[in-house]
Amino acid sequence: MKDHIPTITTGALPASRKTYATGEIHDLRVPMREIAVSNEEPLTVYDSSGPYSDPAVLIDISKGLPEVRGGWLQQRGDVEAYEGREITDVDNGFAQGVRLTAAFPLQRAPLRAAGDRTVTQLAYARAGIITPEMEFVAIRENEGRLAAHATNGESFGADLPDLVTPEFVRREIAGGRAIIPANINHRELEPMIIGRNFKVKINANIGNSAVTSSMEEEVEKMVWAIRWGADTVMDLSTGRNIHNIREWIIRNAPVPIGTVPLYQALEKVGGIAEDLTWEIYRDTLIEQAEQGVDYFTIHAGVRLHMIPMTAKRVTGIVSRGGSIMAKWCLHHHRESFLYENFEEICDICRRYDVSFSLGDGLRPGSIADANDEAQFAELRTLGELTKIAWAKDCQVMIEGPGHVPMHKIKANMEEQLKHCHEAPFYTLGPLTTDIAPGYDHITSAIGAAMIGWYGTAMLCYVTPKEHLGLPDRDDVKTGVITYKLAAHAADLAKGHPGAQRRDDALSRARFEFRWVDQFNLGLDPDTAREMHDETMPKEAHKVAHFCSMCGPKFCSMRISHDIRAAAEKQDGMARMAEKFREGGELYVPVSDSEAEPAE
Amino acid sequence: MKDHIPTITTGALPASRKTYATGEIHDLRVPMREIAVSNEEPLTVYDSSGPYSDPAVLIDISKGLPEVRGGWLQQRGDVEAYEGREITDVDNGFAQGVRLTAAFPLQRAPLRAAGDRTVTQLAYARAGIITPEMEFVAIRENEGRLAAHATNGESFGADLPDLVTPEFVRREIAGGRAIIPANINHRELEPMIIGRNFKVKINANIGNSAVTSSMEEEVEKMVWAIRWGADTVMDLSTGRNIHNIREWIIRNAPVPIGTVPLYQALEKVGGIAEDLTWEIYRDTLIEQAEQGVDYFTIHAGVRLHMIPMTAKRVTGIVSRGGSIMAKWCLHHHRESFLYENFEEICDICRRYDVSFSLGDGLRPGSIADANDEAQFAELRTLGELTKIAWAKDCQVMIEGPGHVPMHKIKANMEEQLKHCHEAPFYTLGPLTTDIAPGYDHITSAIGAAMIGWYGTAMLCYVTPKEHLGLPDRDDVKTGVITYKLAAHAADLAKGHPGAQRRDDALSRARFEFRWVDQFNLGLDPDTAREMHDETMPKEAHKVAHFCSMCGPKFCSMRISHDIRAAAEKQDGMARMAEKFREGGELYVPVSDSEAEPAE
Repeated sequence: MKDHIPTITTGALPASRKTYATGEIHDLRVPMREIAVSNEEPLTVYDSSGPYSDPAVLIDISKGLPEVRGGWLQQRGDVEAYEGREITDVDNGFAQGVRLTAAFPLQRAPLRAAGDRTVTQLAYARAGIITPEMEFVAIRENEGRLAAHATNGESFGADLPDLVTPEFVRREIAGGRAIIPANINHRELEPMIIGRNFKVKINANIGNSAVTSSMEEEVEKMVWAIRWGADTVMDLSTGRNIHNIREWIIRNAPVPIGTVPLYQALEKVGGIAEDLTWEIYRDTLIEQAEQGVDYFTIHAGVRLHMIPMTAKRVTGIVSRGGSIMAKWCLHHHRESFLYENFEEICDICRRYDVSFSLGDGLRPGSIADANDEAQFAELRTLGELTKIAWAKDCQVMIEGPGHVPMHKIKANMEEQLKHCHEAPFYTLGPLTTDIAPGYDHITSAIGAAMIGWYGTAMLCYVTPKEHLGLPDRDDVKTGVITYKLAAHAADLAKGHPGAQRRDDALSRARFEFRWVDQFNLGLDPDTAREMHDETMPKEAHKVAHFCSMCGPKFCSMRISHDIRAAAEKQDGMARMAEKFREGGELYVPVSDSEAEPAE
Repeated sequence: MKDHIPTITTGALPASRKTYATGEIHDLRVPMREIAVSNEEPLTVYDSSGPYSDPAVLIDISKGLPEVRGGWLQQRGDVEAYEGREITDVDNGFAQGVRLTAAFPLQRAPLRAAGDRTVTQLAYARAGIITPEMEFVAIRENEGRLAAHATNGESFGADLPDLVTPEFVRREIAGGRAIIPANINHRELEPMIIGRNFKVKINANIGNSAVTSSMEEEVEKMVWAIRWGADTVMDLSTGRNIHNIREWIIRNAPVPIGTVPLYQALEKVGGIAEDLTWEIYRDTLIEQAEQGVDYFTIHAGVRLHMIPMTAKRVTGIVSRGGSIMAKWCLHHHRESFLYENFEEICDICRRYDVSFSLGDGLRPGSIADANDEAQFAELRTLGELTKIAWAKDCQVMIEGPGHVPMHKIKANMEEQLKHCHEAPFYTLGPLTTDIAPGYDHITSAIGAAMIGWYGTAMLCYVTPKEHLGLPDRDDVKTGVITYKLAAHAADLAKGHPGAQRRDDALSRARFEFRWVDQFNLGLDPDTAREMHDETMPKEAHKVAHFCSMCGPKFCSMRISHDIRAAAEKQDGMARMAEKFREGGELYVPVSDSEAEPAE
């Protein structure tokens, strides 16, 4: 990369300061975001944005992020560095010359479990060990709170403690109800947890397309997505340079990176599904595990006998991985090599602590196909595979739909809990109608908020471009913010302790006409401020004691203040009414240049 | 208006043709929209857009729309024309000279019920009469279907017949479970119905602000909102010219127009709430009823003793009407003049068949205040008022919140059904979190879809500018489309017969790579096409047999076609697999100019 330092979005979010909490068991620096609020204590919130939002950190993507976990891995003493698999031209799709994305400059020997040691968070948890990763996420989940806040949600059986302790995290992981996707080769990772009894998380997908995107652009997409709140990022790249681009992303990623290894394996056989072999696939798993991929989507639940179940569907198989495996199975008339070799896949994942994201290759692709035989047959198989992976000390989550009308959403959660033994659920939407191409971030946010409430642990975002095109920077941001609000709506409804702090802080700012606080406490301060500027551009408007929507004449909140002021001073309605009589005007009649506050 | 014909959006929607169904009982022309689909029968859908989308109609807003209902009213013979109330300067806020919006050119004598006749749809329904309005909406609701379609929703007690008959409509209206807002002075109206047992409807708000907006702009806002699917439009104008602008809107509106008469009454007393009187308010009701306003929001449920219940709220009173009435009550230490004179209000509304939209002046304005004492106290009062209005043969719906977390939404619907005797519910959102200013069309679409599913009959839209500024043209469209998809998601989940036709047609188009059909069958064909163009601009891409999202290599739907084709030809898996072996490639490896289909 010579001397060129790519342009990556850095800097604090508006009115925000990066702070770090410390551990009690381990030596930790857990990042938080503190939002300054006028007249009130600052609000501390969960922060997925990594060092990019810390002005004290100099970002140089050719060096990668600091190795947060380096010391922890060393301390545990159960990993060994070794000479990894050799990178060959096929790993990058035979990209040559100017078409070749440069390799990441710093090459490290990969780590793996030493000897017969098991290095998964699940194994540690089962052994009663609280790892730094576990304490890290426990602190993170509390968002700086020392005490629980009043809640009154409906949790549908989720267990939401007043404060998350490291021991609680350990127990949840040991029980398979939560995972910390944290490949030992992803030392740059700031650990996070995915489970029904924690904050609902969101994933953003990125990935180069055949036509566009440089390595720089992909790193920036990841940084951009986490800046707005993505908790994990899936790299769905296809085409050339897939290995090198992934390396750049992981070395610069403070969040877990997920992939679908089948995509790269298919590239290696020239895109011909029938030519896929277990050996090529296994080699790809090792390649990506050595790089530090934190979770693999593995479509091992698509079995030969299920494929005919999809023949009468309106939209057939809509999962890329699912359709590739279906074609392979049919062509060879054999059981899926992913299913047949699942134990060996577990052995590989265990060696690096790559978490499973068991793919739903037969998820419905339309309202018409929701909750059908194929979908639920696969779900039951994913439940069987979960038990196999757990027996191998591997962490597991389960992927879910897709397209589901509202009245069929709850059954998805219930079936998943039942058949997959409370392993975390990770759904794509679901979209609640098919009739709004261009607005599928919204059709799916409805389903996502609901299934998140019912118990889904992570929501995979959908952008406005879903079904239509490749998301650009604005689409990624819209998708992330939309899913953050859906996840938060779910947390509120579940009664997640502390979730309502932010709603209340923003509502107080709204009621007190603290416009700037209102912007800053929101998920997207920049957009909120821009929209306010359109109607009321002057700085004086940011302290105006009326809403821009209603104008000064009809401001209900202004009147409410009068009522409250009176109520506070009086003990009876009679005297309160009298007070108002003295008070006079509801508003000062405005001139022709009205709707302009005094400046 | 001299010779100037304002610029109003007209013309058919993409691939759409205006058709008209005829009545069996009455002589009717019921508008429908027929969407052309390649390879399939056209899809007929509900059409709220009025004559503006019919190329055969010449639009001239200075003439107003054709009087659809003129003949019906004449036939009934129970109305009389009379010399209406004189329009005075105060009605237009004393606008003068160039500041005065011209009066609508054609002045008609208003109609009222003749003698002791009762002209409300409720009275007719109770008398066993099926009016043209009732048959019109019955035909409309069926969207050209002759038969029911398979559904499997959860209706929460809603009664959704296979086909809507005029008699079913009559019975629903007679029972108070539905209303047809249709002032006898709004002769241009294409009637529509609001009730739990019909398609979920949406309302869009428009209105001039103190600063901006000409009459032309307001008419265009209305036309624009109904083009994208608004079923009713509320004119929330304040400030000068309020009377004349409303006249222009109504004369050009094929949908019901709602208002909050209190806003104009307040203008008439210079904006000083304490100076409001029953006489001024009553005069305003008559003024607007003579113009043809179809429903009035009346905040008669805000009673003196409830006001202290709001004192400890995080956001006090957030309804403009509610806060104005609260201030009046406190100042005078008297019961609300709306509550005290409610029977006389009914007498006025009955004379013109203005429907009630009983306002929720104490609705919560934040997550913190949802479902509190004040809110439900008012709801119970609205239930009492409903009975009074029904006793006077007036049609009634009930307004609802606001801001409600997901787990508290269902209680709102249940309480409303219980206390308001199944009168239709009309809610604003509700927003399911407060933390996303700039995205409140989405935070509220989640709540709107859910409460629509539970039984709300009409959803009042929220635009992205909510809480921040005045919506522009793009915001209005975004709000309408967002609410259309939420209402449709609700219809699907309720199991509304026929709702899924459109989802299925679009899904088939998607699966068969009929890109243009996919755009045209969606709620916003223009945006869908633009998004597709961004990634795949060429015309040939519109017939490309792969998704732009995944590119040609990873098209799951293409593979599904192979699987289906094989399944159709074969009777066993063995032969199916063999077929695939012959078939060869999953895709043709692409060159450097890849992702480009053959042209």
